[in-house]
Amino acid sequence: MKASIEAINTRLPTVNTHIYPRGGLDVLSRTEVARLRDASAGGMHDLLRRCALAVLTSGSASDDPRAARELYPDFDIEVQQQDRGVRIDLRNAPAMAFVDGEIIHGVADLLFAAVRDLAYIAIELGEEAGRDLQTSEGITDSVFGLLRNARLLRPADPNLVVCWGGHSISREEYVYTKQVGYELGLRGLDICTGCGPGAMKGPMKGATIAHAKQRRRNTRYIGITEPGIIAAESPNPIVNHLVIMPDIEKRLEAFVRLGHGIIVFPGGVGTAEEILYLLGILLREENADLPFPLIFTGPSTSAPYFEQIDRFIRLTLGEEATRRYQIITGDSAEVAKRMTIGIRKVREHRIAQKDSFFFNWSIEIPEAFQRPFIPTHEAMAALDLHRGRKAHELAADLRRAFSGIVAGNVKEDGMRRIEEHGPFEIHGDADFMHSLDALLRAFVEQRRMKIAGEYKPCYRVVA
Amino acid sequence: MKASIEAINTRLPTVNTHIYPRGGLDVLSRTEVARLRDASAGGMHDLLRRCALAVLTSGSASDDPRAARELYPDFDIEVQQQDRGVRIDLRNAPAMAFVDGEIIHGVADLLFAAVRDLAYIAIELGEEAGRDLQTSEGITDSVFGLLRNARLLRPADPNLVVCWGGHSISREEYVYTKQVGYELGLRGLDICTGCGPGAMKGPMKGATIAHAKQRRRNTRYIGITEPGIIAAESPNPIVNHLVIMPDIEKRLEAFVRLGHGIIVFPGGVGTAEEILYLLGILLREENADLPFPLIFTGPSTSAPYFEQIDRFIRLTLGEEATRRYQIITGDSAEVAKRMTIGIRKVREHRIAQKDSFFFNWSIEIPEAFQRPFIPTHEAMAALDLHRGRKAHELAADLRRAFSGIVAGNVKEDGMRRIEEHGPFEIHGDADFMHSLDALLRAFVEQRRMKIAGEYKPCYRVVA
Amino acid sequence: MKASIEAINTRLPTVNTHIYPRGGLDVLSRTEVARLRDASAGGMHDLLRRCALAVLTSGSASDDPRAARELYPDFDIEVQQQDRGVRIDLRNAPAMAFVDGEIIHGVADLLFAAVRDLAYIAIELGEEAGRDLQTSEGITDSVFGLLRNARLLRPADPNLVVCWGGHSISREEYVYTKQVGYELGLRGLDICTGCGPGAMKGPMKGATIAHAKQRRRNTRYIGITEPGIIAAESPNPIVNHLVIMPDIEKRLEAFVRLGHGIIVFPGGVGTAEEILYLLGILLREENADLPFPLIFTGPSTSAPYFEQIDRFIRLTLGEEATRRYQIITGDSAEVAKRMTIGIRKVREHRIAQKDSFFFNWSIEIPEAFQRPFIPTHEAMAALDLHRGRKAHELAADLRRAFSGIVAGNVKEDGMRRIEEHGPFEIHGDADFMHSLDALLRAFVEQRRMKIAGEYKPCYRVVA
Amino acid sequence: MKASIEAINTRLPTVNTHIYPRGGLDVLSRTEVARLRDASAGGMHDLLRRCALAVLTSGSASDDPRAARELYPDFDIEVQQQDRGVRIDLRNAPAMAFVDGEIIHGVADLLFAAVRDLAYIAIELGEEAGRDLQTSEGITDSVFGLLRNARLLRPADPNLVVCWGGHSISREEYVYTKQVGYELGLRGLDICTGCGPGAMKGPMKGATIAHAKQRRRNTRYIGITEPGIIAAESPNPIVNHLVIMPDIEKRLEAFVRLGHGIIVFPGGVGTAEEILYLLGILLREENADLPFPLIFTGPSTSAPYFEQIDRFIRLTLGEEATRRYQIITGDSAEVAKRMTIGIRKVREHRIAQKDSFFFNWSIEIPEAFQRPFIPTHEAMAALDLHRGRKAHELAADLRRAFSGIVAGNVKEDGMRRIEEHGPFEIHGDADFMHSLDALLRAFVEQRRMKIAGEYKPCYRVVA
Repeated sequence: MKASIEAINTRLPTVNTHIYPRGGLDVLSRTEVARLRDASAGGMHDLLRRCALAVLTSGSASDDPRAARELYPDFDIEVQQQDRGVRIDLRNAPAMAFVDGEIIHGVADLLFAAVRDLAYIAIELGEEAGRDLQTSEGITDSVFGLLRNARLLRPADPNLVVCWGGHSISREEYVYTKQVGYELGLRGLDICTGCGPGAMKGPMKGATIAHAKQRRRNTRYIGITEPGIIAAESPNPIVNHLVIMPDIEKRLEAFVRLGHGIIVFPGGVGTAEEILYLLGILLREENADLPFPLIFTGPSTSAPYFEQIDRFIRLTLGEEATRRYQIITGDSAEVAKRMTIGIRKVREHRIAQKDSFFFNWSIEIPEAFQRPFIPTHEAMAALDLHRGRKAHELAADLRRAFSGIVAGNVKEDGMRRIEEHGPFEIHGDADFMHSLDALLRAFVEQRRMKIAGEYKPCYRVVA
Repeated sequence: MKASIEAINTRLPTVNTHIYPRGGLDVLSRTEVARLRDASAGGMHDLLRRCALAVLTSGSASDDPRAARELYPDFDIEVQQQDRGVRIDLRNAPAMAFVDGEIIHGVADLLFAAVRDLAYIAIELGEEAGRDLQTSEGITDSVFGLLRNARLLRPADPNLVVCWGGHSISREEYVYTKQVGYELGLRGLDICTGCGPGAMKGPMKGATIAHAKQRRRNTRYIGITEPGIIAAESPNPIVNHLVIMPDIEKRLEAFVRLGHGIIVFPGGVGTAEEILYLLGILLREENADLPFPLIFTGPSTSAPYFEQIDRFIRLTLGEEATRRYQIITGDSAEVAKRMTIGIRKVREHRIAQKDSFFFNWSIEIPEAFQRPFIPTHEAMAALDLHRGRKAHELAADLRRAFSGIVAGNVKEDGMRRIEEHGPFEIHGDADFMHSLDALLRAFVEQRRMKIAGEYKPCYRVVA
Repeated sequence: MKASIEAINTRLPTVNTHIYPRGGLDVLSRTEVARLRDASAGGMHDLLRRCALAVLTSGSASDDPRAARELYPDFDIEVQQQDRGVRIDLRNAPAMAFVDGEIIHGVADLLFAAVRDLAYIAIELGEEAGRDLQTSEGITDSVFGLLRNARLLRPADPNLVVCWGGHSISREEYVYTKQVGYELGLRGLDICTGCGPGAMKGPMKGATIAHAKQRRRNTRYIGITEPGIIAAESPNPIVNHLVIMPDIEKRLEAFVRLGHGIIVFPGGVGTAEEILYLLGILLREENADLPFPLIFTGPSTSAPYFEQIDRFIRLTLGEEATRRYQIITGDSAEVAKRMTIGIRKVREHRIAQKDSFFFNWSIEIPEAFQRPFIPTHEAMAALDLHRGRKAHELAADLRRAFSGIVAGNVKEDGMRRIEEHGPFEIHGDADFMHSLDALLRAFVEQRRMKIAGEYKPCYRVVA
Repeated sequence: MKASIEAINTRLPTVNTHIYPRGGLDVLSRTEVARLRDASAGGMHDLLRRCALAVLTSGSASDDPRAARELYPDFDIEVQQQDRGVRIDLRNAPAMAFVDGEIIHGVADLLFAAVRDLAYIAIELGEEAGRDLQTSEGITDSVFGLLRNARLLRPADPNLVVCWGGHSISREEYVYTKQVGYELGLRGLDICTGCGPGAMKGPMKGATIAHAKQRRRNTRYIGITEPGIIAAESPNPIVNHLVIMPDIEKRLEAFVRLGHGIIVFPGGVGTAEEILYLLGILLREENADLPFPLIFTGPSTSAPYFEQIDRFIRLTLGEEATRRYQIITGDSAEVAKRMTIGIRKVREHRIAQKDSFFFNWSIEIPEAFQRPFIPTHEAMAALDLHRGRKAHELAADLRRAFSGIVAGNVKEDGMRRIEEHGPFEIHGDADFMHSLDALLRAFVEQRRMKIAGEYKPCYRVVA
């Protein structure tokens, strides 16, 4: 793995080298290697290049993926076939991923993971598999297949806590996520996040220190990402298991089926959407008896944030919905204790149901949650945000409304649609919509949502 | 895994229990479990039942599989689906596989291996895969797939010696196979055989003692079998890796691609066929430069046996063919030293060719050797056993002639054909055929071939 | 560790080499290395040479140690000091301990063990330590120290079965000891013996196969020997932990404190003495509540042997004594089941008493049992073998009487004393003495005791 | 290890519990346990109590040990004897060392280490051993014995870097020590420090992240302390091997014999003394050919600091002395590269000399450096700081002068002596003394030395 370091002009130093994979890519048939090479050279190539660059700049100061691409414009990756197996060629790779010409082991592992997952997506979930992906069960099977291929499914006691929250949070909030991770780690719990910065890094960092103090081995810091996100959010350097899911919906399903409990830290609209996604699932009758610890937490100063979210949930989904989560602020040890108790119940339930520890087969995720929502004016007008609907159905539509409003405000596609056709028309009870509006304004004020200029609603309510 | 022991009437004691798999069957999707259950309940069921019984009576005094089936007529095995995964139910299972109601770990491992491989054959190599199995490359891929699924392909230094030879050999020959195994084991070599008794057990037994003296861990005693053989030859209790290949040809290919060298002990006609199979491959031009240590060995008293085989090879395949093997008798240490040197060359060659250590991709096995030969009168008449042909082609036809003659003498199908249509007509040079005949007569005299009554050739030569 | 093999004239092939220790000898201070070198070059040298030769010829056909010394008259061993640590030089060492010039790992381990223990005896239990060895507690501490230094004391669940019995037993008895070892091994039990042939090898061999079938790792085949015995009885090649105790009494104490249960196979007078030693301890009041599984066993044909011993014990020590042991013949599985149950009780008792699992501190071994008995006429005349004494005191004197009679019949010292001073006079009840005499005659008849010519008692009874 | 948490009045929460040792204290004889109990209850008790409290408050914000003792006035520790072994009773222990009533594993390990080392010091290096400690060799042996007993001596490739430097350094300097640790860790090097805060913590913290990225296991963060220091400087929570040496001189010797290279970060007078100690040893002729990488480093801003030290060394010990160290500022990667190269040379040298990897036997440390220097007026007047002496002798005296001046300025004993008898008289060349004076003034200005009021020299030069 010796490499030659070249510093070109004013550009950052880069390295040309080739590396030999471990961990699942080391025992392939000649046919598989050929398919892998073809996939990585064909349609998948640009995606692989971007993901690889994200991994190779992991831990760099900047979070801006475009910066990385501008800084390393000549970077390229190729998968080569040898009788012995796969060889990965890197050209003009960021020198920061190397030590004295040798690639850092952990970076290499993440790189192999990226190749492995993109190859799996291209080959196993490609066109031929299309039919299987038409059913809810088929989609769940594909999530299972990807996670198993990533060697994340192993028989072991339930101990995986998923942490959600914003990637740009305040210093105080970040420190708190570290404290929570520390308390979780002291209690032998492993961490799974979206693998970027902020609330996705803090808990892992805290857990690392705690695991070291508890002399824990075989700890897992799992990052679950998807192609659109990894390029924007380099996996933080603590992640030791990386898996790239094909799209956002499968990523969310992976969190829910892999994790034994979920903690939500303060975040922006994305986090609010995730909450509604999860409540939409948990409020279904089929999942009523399923234990699933869910805790909203932040430093004391974030109490108002969660109060507002809580109020919104109570108003729209009813008091019943609040039984599915606990809000704890400013007490990281308490969060960890409650999570420990919750996961113990999950364990007992799985044993009683003869369900596996490593994949939550029992939780019912309807197909509607597995398919992406595209916020056209028609789709938005079709939403039904009135009182009297079943809570889980309302949650699903609220999540879609949320998603659409966000798009209308900040995403290119959505903003264009608003400019062309005017504001979305949403059918719903007025108080629901006011509450939603208030929530959005608060996010803007707290700088959790990036708005250029003054905030202007992109929808109007039709009763 | 607690079980109730029941002794029914005069029958042998049996156990009813259910066990939970490890080792590859422990992380299956719900769909896979369902498919596995269906396969094991459908056409595969009788086969699974027979294989399981062979495994459960492993190490018993008798080698007669029919005896096992008569002794345990009510034995049955069922694969059950649970959310958590697979459960294997055993009914009226031989109590000899249990200790105080708990199944012996090693027996359970072999049982899981049988379920695993038969499921792989039924599901992965079933009808849908039919097309892939039409090409030489497709067949090799299926061999690779099965071996990988059995976790036999791992990056490690070449050290696997395949031992061939008869399952009913003399005491003196058996003791010698143990000595050779001991000397191989002292030199850090692992053993792979057909996993039955005789020459398939002795080398493993000797290696076990040597490995213990050398304090070696992670030793491998690999048994490669196929459905028609396992039921007749229970895996000996030392086998710690069992793999069931779908048919005899894939089993032979597995030996050749997995092993780094082959030792041939005295045996009957089956062993002679194996020698011709291997020489037929090694004498091909494509394989001319491929190092492949091949040693014929036995106690001093077996020298005449190998001399006769050697003469037959010289006569038919030419002096050239003898360069591919060494004959060593009565010197087990020398056998092990030569094998060590040979495998060292294999290692160097693989490195130079960038070929993998764990699967011999480079050796060329033509499709003719991958497909079964069915000895009809037409097929036998089509053989061309004359001087002047290329050695590897002649070897292939000789192997077929051999196979057909054996069938005509001892196999039900073949004997019936002879009775109906008279002796096979074989086209070949007279001296070739005399030599072949002499070889067969010697096997009969040495009791290596079971003939009822006087030996009577089942063929006539047509020049 | 490359070595040059030299075959001198008609002598057996030998090897000159030097080896570097592992396992406890690898981290010594310069002073310790110097002391070790001095001890091994000084008074200890001849002893070390003999022990080393025994280890290097381990597994050879002959059990006769003098043969070994005659066959390798020029063998020598030297411990050399290097800054880095110890180097052991071997000259004219038996080639059978080497493979292609490299010493067999297991043989090297036993060799290091011999150096380690003899050094410990010379340095730690030498003259300076003399005072500590004057008390019962001091002796027990020295036994503890030696066993710990040999890395035999580790926290782990109780599972160590000590097997006693003769080194020259019948084929049928030997096969039976293997069966018992096999059944013990199936149940996860490890084996400790005197590490020679016969009943000391069979149980280890059987357990090895069973452990392999149960996929057990970290199995222990412990051989406990002493300088006078090892030279005569090479450790069998299965032993993976060897410890050399300074004398017979400390060896017996090591068995009793290290083992969690004891099985006695048929043996000669030595075995009978061991039985009386153990009963003498177990019948003490202080040990009355101590669980200590003790089973006498052999094939069905050895039933009369144990019946006679049982009768002798009943007559002399009373019915009470028989509660301390069970006799089981011809049922190896039953022996293992009973031992398993017995050791479970030992485990519970240790937990309740907060006693360690790895060393039986609680059992009371009086100083009288820790000191050697020298059978002079005075000592024999001082024995008191009358009814009415406490069973444990009588057992102690019976053991001494036994020891003395054996000496008078077969040991050089004893026979000389009888020739000079006439038969021993023993004070005891007539029926006791008759029974003892009958036992001895039976041993002679069963060829368990080597007597030249007709058996003639070397004592007379004085009532 | 369940414990009851009690919050007494306004005091901090505490825990009463008992714990059972691992790691060296788990296999003790009854006599040893009794001696350990007696030692810990006797003269050693107060020391043990202070060390234990330091360990139990490891990682707390405050570095002030008196604070800890005031906050936990009722804390106590007792070593109890049980048949099974040792039990450690904790009363009113800081709750911060516990999670839900269970002691943190790493804290327990450090606690066992403290008990282990203090017991070793009391028992093995106590009065009886006094004689052995009279010689240089005996002292070295005691250092070896303590380190081996702490399981720090294991055969492994040289990779241990000792980091020296101040415990109160600037933020910029602290960040730099982390960077150096990170670069060392990326290159597979382990860290050994004095185990307190500042330059003793930063390198470990950086290495932890790097080791995780390189997927290194079995990493070592060794803290070497002594009773007077540990109580003042709690081991930082990353330390996973703690060893308490009996005094400062043995602690320095442990650093020098255990480490394979030394890095010196900015520090106060203590660090300057350490530099002179090491140069005094390295400049001896016996050590002239011994490779020993020594690097002075800090952020760019600390260049003047090292320049001044360098000037002082050049002036006093001569240009020759500067060949023994390199000064690198503001380039952490370069430091790590040079250290890697240096350690490679150490490795080669040890192999060539057949010296051990784990303990530097070859380096000559004269008895003068092994014995404490007590700065009386007589001792100070006896120093000889003139040109023309051998460099290593001058270094030794300079170190003593340094030590005395520091004492005269800030230590209670020394200040009292100055008050009573006036300034020390030191015989030396004037320019040497001026340079020394300048150095001290710079430390004061840079706040590396705590002086109340204006700095006033406590000595006068006598030419």
